Amino acid sequence: MNDSDDTAAGRFAYEGLDRVLHEKARLGILTALLTHADGLSFGDLVRLCDLTDGNLSRHLDVLSEAGLVKVTKAFAGRRPLTTCALTAHGRKRFREYLLELEQVIRDAATQTSAASAKANPGLAGA
Amino acid sequence: MNDSDDTAAGRFAYEGLDRVLHEKARLGILTALLTHADGLSFGDLVRLCDLTDGNLSRHLDVLSEAGLVKVTKAFAGRRPLTTCALTAHGRKRFREYLLELEQVIRDAATQTSAASAKANPGLAGA
Repeated sequence: MNDSDDTAAGRFAYEGLDRVLHEKARLGILTALLTHADGLSFGDLVRLCDLTDGNLSRHLDVLSEAGLVKVTKAFAGRRPLTTCALTAHGRKRFREYLLELEQVIRDAATQTSAASAKANPGLAGA
Repeated sequence: MNDSDDTAAGRFAYEGLDRVLHEKARLGILTALLTHADGLSFGDLVRLCDLTDGNLSRHLDVLSEAGLVKVTKAFAGRRPLTTCALTAHGRKRFREYLLELEQVIRDAATQTSAASAKANPGLAGA
């Protein structure tokens, strides 16, 4: 992608922002898991991502069906313990996604000042 | 938010990622408009964001109902010309959103290396 050409077709399409990863709750889950390479329990994820059990389950289903997250069910003593971790594929895909996200921020940051300075200083300063 | 405490409740909830702005196509539209302070025609947005007319219309409805974008219908000679621009409120809200997006990237970037180096080097390197 050519950063300096903001007139090219599809310049702001951001095809790399796959909706499976981009959805707000799943983005939080993936970031939490990326920061915990040894995985997180279901309960930890509920708390860290501020989700209900039902919501988290639904999003984990989407992520594991896409092969991004592995969910392991075991027992801690007699209590069931569900652990979630990124797969190698998930880590790779999420890092690629983050690169595209950085591109959005770069586009917004650099081009704001250029465009603002140009045609419409009144509107830009509003 | 405390960057160094990744165990706090809601640490990865990213409440600032308002779905009205976060949706992939709308994120592209908003970035395109932020970079063009004097606005863009409907046709330009279709091309830059690689959307169908119907999809763009639908997303512009959502954005203008939220007061983020102003859509102006006029004529260029005898041809109808629809122009779209961010409102002052939209620009402010989108910049706030971008700050939250930067937080996600910062979280992912800094904590990956810390967590990877720590508990599970095999998994982290996979």
